[in-house]
Amino acid sequence: MLYHVRMDVRVPHDVDPARFERLKAEEKARAEALQRAGTWRYLWRVAGQYANVSIFDVEDHDELHSILSTLPLFPFMAIEVTPLARHPSAIG
Amino acid sequence: MLYHVRMDVRVPHDVDPARFERLKAEEKARAEALQRAGTWRYLWRVAGQYANVSIFDVEDHDELHSILSTLPLFPFMAIEVTPLARHPSAIG
Amino acid sequence: MLYHVRMDVRVPHDVDPARFERLKAEEKARAEALQRAGTWRYLWRVAGQYANVSIFDVEDHDELHSILSTLPLFPFMAIEVTPLARHPSAIG
Amino acid sequence: MLYHVRMDVRVPHDVDPARFERLKAEEKARAEALQRAGTWRYLWRVAGQYANVSIFDVEDHDELHSILSTLPLFPFMAIEVTPLARHPSAIG
Amino acid sequence: MLYHVRMDVRVPHDVDPARFERLKAEEKARAEALQRAGTWRYLWRVAGQYANVSIFDVEDHDELHSILSTLPLFPFMAIEVTPLARHPSAIG
Amino acid sequence: MLYHVRMDVRVPHDVDPARFERLKAEEKARAEALQRAGTWRYLWRVAGQYANVSIFDVEDHDELHSILSTLPLFPFMAIEVTPLARHPSAIG
Amino acid sequence: MLYHVRMDVRVPHDVDPARFERLKAEEKARAEALQRAGTWRYLWRVAGQYANVSIFDVEDHDELHSILSTLPLFPFMAIEVTPLARHPSAIG
Amino acid sequence: MLYHVRMDVRVPHDVDPARFERLKAEEKARAEALQRAGTWRYLWRVAGQYANVSIFDVEDHDELHSILSTLPLFPFMAIEVTPLARHPSAIG
Amino acid sequence: MLYHVRMDVRVPHDVDPARFERLKAEEKARAEALQRAGTWRYLWRVAGQYANVSIFDVEDHDELHSILSTLPLFPFMAIEVTPLARHPSAIG
Amino acid sequence: MLYHVRMDVRVPHDVDPARFERLKAEEKARAEALQRAGTWRYLWRVAGQYANVSIFDVEDHDELHSILSTLPLFPFMAIEVTPLARHPSAIG
Repeated sequence: MLYHVRMDVRVPHDVDPARFERLKAEEKARAEALQRAGTWRYLWRVAGQYANVSIFDVEDHDELHSILSTLPLFPFMAIEVTPLARHPSAIG
Repeated sequence: MLYHVRMDVRVPHDVDPARFERLKAEEKARAEALQRAGTWRYLWRVAGQYANVSIFDVEDHDELHSILSTLPLFPFMAIEVTPLARHPSAIG
Repeated sequence: MLYHVRMDVRVPHDVDPARFERLKAEEKARAEALQRAGTWRYLWRVAGQYANVSIFDVEDHDELHSILSTLPLFPFMAIEVTPLARHPSAIG
Repeated sequence: MLYHVRMDVRVPHDVDPARFERLKAEEKARAEALQRAGTWRYLWRVAGQYANVSIFDVEDHDELHSILSTLPLFPFMAIEVTPLARHPSAIG
Repeated sequence: MLYHVRMDVRVPHDVDPARFERLKAEEKARAEALQRAGTWRYLWRVAGQYANVSIFDVEDHDELHSILSTLPLFPFMAIEVTPLARHPSAIG
Repeated sequence: MLYHVRMDVRVPHDVDPARFERLKAEEKARAEALQRAGTWRYLWRVAGQYANVSIFDVEDHDELHSILSTLPLFPFMAIEVTPLARHPSAIG
Repeated sequence: MLYHVRMDVRVPHDVDPARFERLKAEEKARAEALQRAGTWRYLWRVAGQYANVSIFDVEDHDELHSILSTLPLFPFMAIEVTPLARHPSAIG
Repeated sequence: MLYHVRMDVRVPHDVDPARFERLKAEEKARAEALQRAGTWRYLWRVAGQYANVSIFDVEDHDELHSILSTLPLFPFMAIEVTPLARHPSAIG
Repeated sequence: MLYHVRMDVRVPHDVDPARFERLKAEEKARAEALQRAGTWRYLWRVAGQYANVSIFDVEDHDELHSILSTLPLFPFMAIEVTPLARHPSAIG
Repeated sequence: MLYHVRMDVRVPHDVDPARFERLKAEEKARAEALQRAGTWRYLWRVAGQYANVSIFDVEDHDELHSILSTLPLFPFMAIEVTPLARHPSAIG
């Protein structure tokens, strides 16, 4: 089942830089693994912002929440979830 | 180049139903043709709303505007465009 | 799977009253049938507003959209959908 | 009497982690006790967010406020309360 | 139990003036009766706007909704309800 | 002259607790004195929030501002003021 | 006592032009009379919009409301009122 | 002096098409004349929307308002004006 | 040329009080000097808020920006600028 | 291809002043270089705010994001991007 997810990262100016870099590296590794697993179907950068638009393909709401809430940068992100249904004009 | 586009259709309650059905049919035909051409890359329904989330792949802003502004339902839609860049953690 | 749905009904002041009453009666019948089927799990009125807060229990996004978009009052409603996951502190 | 309550938890990035974990444990214990007492009727996680949607069943506004304002995480939550009335199409 | 209610009246410019005046007269009669009954405790005009701020004293959410939703001008009003609890610093 | 005032208290998580408790006690004393003087006519708690809705009865804008801006918690409050006129349907 | 008032005029596209022109002429006459009386102290056009920013000097909220709510264009205006107090750094 | 102006055109669905086309032609002629005069310095289409972003170079606020408020489509536009100052890092 | 300016002061709770008092004194001196010079034409306090509404009379946008951006409290203020044109119904 | 970009700078009150001044100097140098290269086509200050409105001329979304996200002040800016298409009434 598909979910449209937008994530906006907010970096506090007084966060410890080393800690944040470590979290970013972990986030990247996780994002790549989830893409390889087919769960994180698409991942795009919003031009000009520290934000992304993503499409997730998961079993249900619980799996989605479990994935998002354990992302290393979750505490620094504002996340918006939109469930996507099949569009009657979509082909293929 | 990829653009994230959200379209919300607003149907005035006193619109002529026959006219609107004709526009919807034309919109569907156009959407399918643009998908087959690879321009309208993805098309999803926002669950519970007369709205869609789409990804367009076009040459530039002019082509995007030319496509969107000639959609049969354009006069009835609120459209929001977000340019998408490559994400550093995107694979493949 | 559970979805939190809020529906706000907007009645245009120049709608045909007989037509609207007929739609309301159909909406009521449909709401009751969906409740009996266990699909429309909870249905509450927002105090002071022509609006409701509902919990739906359906298979997936497609089923939810199919139900909501065919409600007789759908053309007159602003609908907001929130997917609900299991809460770690929920009991039973 | 039923109240719809949405709680969004905001964790300051520089809060003392041990203190916050202790508050979370206390919050969980309190939430479970209130559910067993039938006061906190439903508790759902908003998918993708550190937030919940809840239904409370209490005597009056004072009891509701007394419960919410003494939740261990109250100082870290944005809370929105919506009073729910019986819906004319609700069955059972 | 007290509820804070704000009502904003929206008069469509093409409403039938005679019908609207009749509704206004009925609304006034109802407001006065509810005040005499002690239900509509306070009624103030928001300076400069076709709007009021009111305090209602009713048994429960159902009674409040039943009163508000049958006000003659209900179809023309945007209504916002806020439940009020006792303030720890309130005297008397 | 009557003013509708809503005050939302925002407590920074890293404020000195002793200092804040002292301010709260001073605020309570001031609120009680102003109520006894008939200036702070009504004071209600917004259920579920660290906020109040109040009605002030003062000579003019200057007196109102002088009162509000010297409240001990003023630096921690978001305040919204709405001037109230007599409502044509208000009785008594 | 001074009030800051912003008025935004919304002209429905299907309003009767002759009726609207008549109302505009009446509004102009009233605005000029109120300025000569010293009540409507300042009147400025918001550049680029069918809107004004005004300062009124009246006895109290009731007088302000009585003036604003009887302006010929009142039914077509969104009005926002802000009470102004003396500023401690204002001279003269 | 430079002003940033954004104009969003709202076409009512029941406007007379011939009248609107005539206004659009007049608007186009006016826009071209103002560009040739150097007043309407830049004019860009917002991709995907019936809207533009423009830069005007005029003597003062009065000239700007006089131009904008006499545009043929003015009654159908939401206009936002932002005064632009010289940027300390701008070259040339 | 006239500009309507609203300034909202945001005082961080952990700012150094002595530093802030010094800035406030400087701000007051500057405001008084600019009023005496006829530049800061009007200065009013928004009742109940640490905010003001002002009218500036300056040569152009550059002078306005130069004044506002060097106010001692500028780093602590949210500022909104609205250019004012002559109103056709303004007298005198 | 043209992009309209608005940047709002938010300076935390407790940022290290020397570090911020260094970043500002670097930002200025970068802005000037990008203007000389023809990439940062226009750069204007929003009067009264620590913000700018800019027009960028770049190859594609990736180049735009690469430029914006490496601006020295990027971590302190809220950035909004609007793709601009050719306007049918633009001349020259």
